[in-house]
Amino acid sequence: MTQVGTLRLTLRLICGESFALGPGKADLLAAIDREGSISGAGRAMGMSYRRAWLLVDEMNRCFSERVVETLSGGGRERGARLTETGRKALDAYRALEAASERLGEEDAYRTLATLIRDEPVPATS
Amino acid sequence: MTQVGTLRLTLRLICGESFALGPGKADLLAAIDREGSISGAGRAMGMSYRRAWLLVDEMNRCFSERVVETLSGGGRERGARLTETGRKALDAYRALEAASERLGEEDAYRTLATLIRDEPVPATS
Repeated sequence: MTQVGTLRLTLRLICGESFALGPGKADLLAAIDREGSISGAGRAMGMSYRRAWLLVDEMNRCFSERVVETLSGGGRERGARLTETGRKALDAYRALEAASERLGEEDAYRTLATLIRDEPVPATS
Repeated sequence: MTQVGTLRLTLRLICGESFALGPGKADLLAAIDREGSISGAGRAMGMSYRRAWLLVDEMNRCFSERVVETLSGGGRERGARLTETGRKALDAYRALEAASERLGEEDAYRTLATLIRDEPVPATS
């Protein structure tokens, strides 16, 4: 998810009925790249190992090549890293997010920005 | 929500902790414009009157002027219509959605599109 001014943008890549990549999965790939394991990435993002593993599995099944590969041995704590495809996908997703921020320069966004308050008027009931 | 190729885009305008406008609220404004009442718009969208009313109330509190005005008399079934501000906001939101579809022409999107399968490989477990 990216935000420019008061505009919040969410980009998702679909694969049949599944999501190949979106804000959460991109952050998970970045965390695996940083932490060096699925379990470490899950902990860093406050999600269970099972949840992190399921998201990685869904990505791996949506891309033409796996995006994350696990290193042999060590069970849950064993290492994992992005494949070349995984890195390419993450970089392209971040580039697309950056491109999406240009929507903040559209007249249509400026019109909306002038019409919207900084804070809502409190509910009366 | 708009979709171009396998890219699904969601645009939301925030107002403090609230959402001033997003895919669901834009569709609700369009439905009110078409149906002529909040209850009719709710029915057309398969949502309760209460839910539709709460969404309208949140929008009205987020914009500098109300986006929907109700006509006097008749209780729930009384008419409602977009104000000038409401129409301007809906038009600008649709224009921003249309502009967002240009992201489908980005190299970054093309790269992702070539890497993602049409359907995920079935789960093995």
